[in-house]
Amino acid sequence: MKYTLGIDYGTLSARALLVEVETGKEVATSVYDYSNAVIDEVLPSSGEKLPPDWALQDPQDYLTALTMTIPAVLKESGVNPEDIIGMGIDFTACTMLPIDRDGHPLCFDPKWRNNPHSWVKLWKHHAAQPEANKINETAEKMGENFLQRYGGRISSEWFFAKALQILDEAPEIYKAADRLMEATDWVNLQLTGVETRNACTAGYKAMWEKASGFPSKEYFKALDPRFENVVDEKMSRNIMPMGSKAGELTAEMAAKLGLKSGIAVAVANVDAHVAVPAATVTKEGVLVAIMGTSTCHMVLGKEPKIVEGMCGYVEDGILPGFFGFEAGQSCVGDHFAWFTENCVPASYKKEAKSLGIGIHDLLEEKAAKLKPGQSGLLALDWWNGNRSILVDVDLTGMILGMNLNTKPEEIYRALIEATAYGANIIIDAFDSNGVAINEIVACGGLPEKNAMLMQIYADVTNREWKIAASPQTCALGSAMWGAVAAGPENGGYACIACAAEKMAKVKQTTYKPIPANHEIYAKLFAEYKKLHDYFGRGENDVMKRLKKIKEEQHS
Amino acid sequence: MKYTLGIDYGTLSARALLVEVETGKEVATSVYDYSNAVIDEVLPSSGEKLPPDWALQDPQDYLTALTMTIPAVLKESGVNPEDIIGMGIDFTACTMLPIDRDGHPLCFDPKWRNNPHSWVKLWKHHAAQPEANKINETAEKMGENFLQRYGGRISSEWFFAKALQILDEAPEIYKAADRLMEATDWVNLQLTGVETRNACTAGYKAMWEKASGFPSKEYFKALDPRFENVVDEKMSRNIMPMGSKAGELTAEMAAKLGLKSGIAVAVANVDAHVAVPAATVTKEGVLVAIMGTSTCHMVLGKEPKIVEGMCGYVEDGILPGFFGFEAGQSCVGDHFAWFTENCVPASYKKEAKSLGIGIHDLLEEKAAKLKPGQSGLLALDWWNGNRSILVDVDLTGMILGMNLNTKPEEIYRALIEATAYGANIIIDAFDSNGVAINEIVACGGLPEKNAMLMQIYADVTNREWKIAASPQTCALGSAMWGAVAAGPENGGYACIACAAEKMAKVKQTTYKPIPANHEIYAKLFAEYKKLHDYFGRGENDVMKRLKKIKEEQHS
Repeated sequence: MKYTLGIDYGTLSARALLVEVETGKEVATSVYDYSNAVIDEVLPSSGEKLPPDWALQDPQDYLTALTMTIPAVLKESGVNPEDIIGMGIDFTACTMLPIDRDGHPLCFDPKWRNNPHSWVKLWKHHAAQPEANKINETAEKMGENFLQRYGGRISSEWFFAKALQILDEAPEIYKAADRLMEATDWVNLQLTGVETRNACTAGYKAMWEKASGFPSKEYFKALDPRFENVVDEKMSRNIMPMGSKAGELTAEMAAKLGLKSGIAVAVANVDAHVAVPAATVTKEGVLVAIMGTSTCHMVLGKEPKIVEGMCGYVEDGILPGFFGFEAGQSCVGDHFAWFTENCVPASYKKEAKSLGIGIHDLLEEKAAKLKPGQSGLLALDWWNGNRSILVDVDLTGMILGMNLNTKPEEIYRALIEATAYGANIIIDAFDSNGVAINEIVACGGLPEKNAMLMQIYADVTNREWKIAASPQTCALGSAMWGAVAAGPENGGYACIACAAEKMAKVKQTTYKPIPANHEIYAKLFAEYKKLHDYFGRGENDVMKRLKKIKEEQHS
Repeated sequence: MKYTLGIDYGTLSARALLVEVETGKEVATSVYDYSNAVIDEVLPSSGEKLPPDWALQDPQDYLTALTMTIPAVLKESGVNPEDIIGMGIDFTACTMLPIDRDGHPLCFDPKWRNNPHSWVKLWKHHAAQPEANKINETAEKMGENFLQRYGGRISSEWFFAKALQILDEAPEIYKAADRLMEATDWVNLQLTGVETRNACTAGYKAMWEKASGFPSKEYFKALDPRFENVVDEKMSRNIMPMGSKAGELTAEMAAKLGLKSGIAVAVANVDAHVAVPAATVTKEGVLVAIMGTSTCHMVLGKEPKIVEGMCGYVEDGILPGFFGFEAGQSCVGDHFAWFTENCVPASYKKEAKSLGIGIHDLLEEKAAKLKPGQSGLLALDWWNGNRSILVDVDLTGMILGMNLNTKPEEIYRALIEATAYGANIIIDAFDSNGVAINEIVACGGLPEKNAMLMQIYADVTNREWKIAASPQTCALGSAMWGAVAAGPENGGYACIACAAEKMAKVKQTTYKPIPANHEIYAKLFAEYKKLHDYFGRGENDVMKRLKKIKEEQHS
């Protein structure tokens, strides 16, 4: 029996999964919670308070994750390392960092450690909005073609916005950086000793496309004369397709991890993107929704299409031979976690304790008793801005309909419903712009745990929602790409579709819409849409004005 | 030394206060918490679930309050009952009930006890909206003059809406009722054995005016043929002016309460209205804000004026010789209580406990550290509808600006700010329609306890807020009216202004606006106003549509 390893780097933790290549059977798994988690209040090295909207990570956590989890799965499974033929990793994105000539993060260097710009900028670092605005305005002014591939707007979460923020606010860090790298490629560099850049993050996060490459030097120069050669000076034009081998595990790393040296390491990838084949999807027209702290929506298509507010489409970006379309909701599980931490009264905590269940379970139990529309509440799910289709991090959350009898479980359910409306806006945007959605498969932590949520999604969207069989689709996807990187000659697979056929499954249980519920949700969605457009499309920019006042009062 | 007693019937409790007539010194006080409090979920007699928007009370609580509190203040003070020369009561309004020929509430009768319409309808019973709509539409159609005295709309909280709901939904109760009475007049009936009706509730809640009396029979007939003679059949046209004597304490009641029989009982009054002279105000141009679970805004003027969304103006309705203007916010303290009960996490409760302070104190401590606008939040304070100036119980609460870092104290502060914006709308409405506001005096539970709240009110309105000296202004006001009812011949006063001069005071501490704060709040108020008009004036009736769906889903 041959095995591969998938390593999935999430927002708060990393997971290693050991998988049987022949069957996809998940043999052992291990999770490491990052010790510095999301750094959004103070810089660990100095205690310096970070400005609003910052979100950093510590690359040491990425390395520790490898040395903690891989030996653990080996131990748990008892598998002989000789039988592990390859590995793959996936990551949040755009999560990027500046490194020195030796591949060390600048934040490891005492000289730079107290400068927050030397640390990893996590995907949800939202402080590069001025740079994103400049990127968009300049692209519009110069008539740059790439804009339309990304739904008309480049997000502040993406690579060049973050890079430009470093240049703007810490030119010394920009100068000291030998390279700027996606964290996913950087971890691969640590594993293989070889610098590679993957087509997925290059395409989705750095405006690269297979046919024409990166935007022009003239464009970068227009952003800032010092930025003219950002690609050649700080990055690379050598972009590798998904499924190819990035390199082989170094002897040094193999010794640390207890693996065989020289095994195949797949080109690094992104969490949402590796989930697609792991959710069985290798053809066009099937939406894969990866639902966790945030949700990514992935669809394959045969031709390029312009869809408002898409995160982008990239040729070969998800699977070779397809245009990969991506959209996203930046606050889903995070939403419920915020609510549970900040808004659930002590009496509920007590009740959950006395019932011996978790607080989410108690809320679900209470919320599941409510009929659609029964609370009178409606929310806009913008606690972390709106990624698709409005592409605007300055939008904020809203809830209305409260009265003096409003209960916590009603608010909880309204927040869940709001994320379902947000998903429905995205599905509609795809479907009405030529990217057909004939089927939906969900995966990630939420569908696994929350049946009420899935039923609400089915009722709101009036579509059946299937669920991927694996509770750890991303790690499974990475293991599948590891099997492709190893190739049939080593006991792996020749292509990702071949791997998916054997290794990926969906559950028997699916969620089908209940017509009576959909009828009510159709009315509520119409109200959501109206407020979505009112607050999100410039009719009343109160959220942005409040944010501006907030920033002035903070400074 | 002579004394009078003031009895203040609030929403959750009643308070008796014994006061020195000569100085206003408060000698002893006692509070009784109603055992059935606000009945808004199930009917106590049957366990029957009440529909949404219902709010009842148990008249037994009103009687028990007398027998519990009056003996208690006598005992505490040691005052000789011979020296107590009079008493007055005030009440929430419109709080009304059906009674039989002997003055007993119909809900005391086993025959009617399980019919919710036999109980007291509390001021915040909001289920008579269809009747209020009919009252307004019919008045408009018939060109009834009275509408304009009430800011153009009659509230569902008022007398005829509630009476008509009884007729609509329980004609057998309507028929069985010998009379329909304001609870304040009913308690006086119990004290004196004489039925009186006071000019204050008649004027503010039952469309009566000194010059022309009640609306015409034709109007009532147009509402419902069975309603044609509602005034003559179920009420009385004998309306007594404020300050006169309703009657004398019966021997039976005197024995129960430990008082001297035959002492003067003042014409019954309303809590907010008695607070005006108790807050020292006996002239025009001074707004008295009585701030508790809800807020009432009272101003005296020399002429009638039309102000949008006023609760009404009544000649002699507050003090003889003035037009009394009233406006209101139906959810102020209630708002913060709802938040504390439903939205404050266990960790805060723990923190408060470890600091040995209450949860409101902890929230205030944390919220007081925030600068205006620093949270980025904005709320509409409509958790209990909007009384002034929109007069619409179907409006609901809204809050926006949340992100994943939003903290409970930020929401708490935003709710306080929202009530301050609501107050500012009312002050502006008066001031710009010829009812000048030159000064403001606040009284009630909130100003007493919450310095941050008062500073926010001063900053938002850009006006100085004075505070009445008494922490129990309503009960003091009732005691003052009791002294007027007793008259100078018994050691009381000839007029309420004479009583106020001796018995009422304001505190040394006042709240003055801080210019830098007002500058920010002026911007935030502009945003509030925009959303107030968007949601409240028909541009987007989403709140009403959600409420309709909610009702359909409940039924």
